[in-house]
Amino acid sequence: MPETIEIPPRTGTAFRLQKGQRLRVIDPQGVQVSDLLAFNAHDTREVISNGRTLDYASRLYLTTGDPLYSNRSNIMLSIVEDTCGRHDFLLTPCSKDTFRIIYGHTDPHQGCFGNLAKALEPHGIQPDQIPCAFNCFMNVPIDVKTGMFTVEPPLSKPGDYIDFTAEMDLIIAMTACSAGLSNGGTFKPIQYQISDQ
Amino acid sequence: MPETIEIPPRTGTAFRLQKGQRLRVIDPQGVQVSDLLAFNAHDTREVISNGRTLDYASRLYLTTGDPLYSNRSNIMLSIVEDTCGRHDFLLTPCSKDTFRIIYGHTDPHQGCFGNLAKALEPHGIQPDQIPCAFNCFMNVPIDVKTGMFTVEPPLSKPGDYIDFTAEMDLIIAMTACSAGLSNGGTFKPIQYQISDQ
Repeated sequence: MPETIEIPPRTGTAFRLQKGQRLRVIDPQGVQVSDLLAFNAHDTREVISNGRTLDYASRLYLTTGDPLYSNRSNIMLSIVEDTCGRHDFLLTPCSKDTFRIIYGHTDPHQGCFGNLAKALEPHGIQPDQIPCAFNCFMNVPIDVKTGMFTVEPPLSKPGDYIDFTAEMDLIIAMTACSAGLSNGGTFKPIQYQISDQ
Repeated sequence: MPETIEIPPRTGTAFRLQKGQRLRVIDPQGVQVSDLLAFNAHDTREVISNGRTLDYASRLYLTTGDPLYSNRSNIMLSIVEDTCGRHDFLLTPCSKDTFRIIYGHTDPHQGCFGNLAKALEPHGIQPDQIPCAFNCFMNVPIDVKTGMFTVEPPLSKPGDYIDFTAEMDLIIAMTACSAGLSNGGTFKPIQYQISDQ
């Protein structure tokens, strides 16, 4: 059994994932989002791209069988198993600005953006390089007529997970999301496992 | 009257837009998309961000009154007039890879991405810095249940336009889009005007 590593509530981490390895992102308590980023480990200017991925998928909601593309149109990760089935690839990591603009907080938390920036700094990746994340378990339904969307509690139950296979050597950054709206009003941990398959 | 400048079919251009200036993007023949990018003229690592913008708007489709944010959550442009009312801010500029992956072309056109990259090179901006564009007049309806979307002909009629005010000094890049699906199967010019208001 691969080791289970826990990301405490409202924090983030970053690590290497080698080509061919499998990453399992687990929501241990349910109703908790994890923002996930991927960078080419050998050239960090190549980064996960929601625009490329959604364009090629012609679909907003991704699940088992879907590839996640980079800004250079290379496949970085493939989704190989998914017990939840609802994730978001539209919105940016929550940040000080999110809490200021959307929540009206006067002393805002650094959010997933700050946590990702801190975790990526030792890998030589600057905050400006952080794109839209693949937001595991995030639930963003859309009103098709108006285009309005809302951020609703995740559909994930305790123990739900999503598995990715690395299609190139990667630096992965992940959070246990810090935004109340995204997580049903509570802040919970996220777990992950890495296996060689 | 401000000068009207034409962007020939399947090409692109880039220029400075000073804070306070107004940019009008015109579809002279109708049913033609223009991909639009914005960079902070004084620090080109700051760039237009669909994720930040859509997150703060809570809406996929933007029009008059909506601000367009940067990756640093600063307002770069404001939409101040819009005679069409349907644009896209979801998809990346079409590229060689778009034509290879979606269209199956064996000798693909460089697309808006290649045209934007070429136009931005003299400004010291690298291809990897190109994010999702604000796609003026692009029509991407979504099926709310499945999340599937399609690229349909623009709703723009001849002479329709969208006006932006610059909220900071910008480098703007724009195209007359090169993708058949986006433009009702034909490739037409785009025009623009810059005025001091």
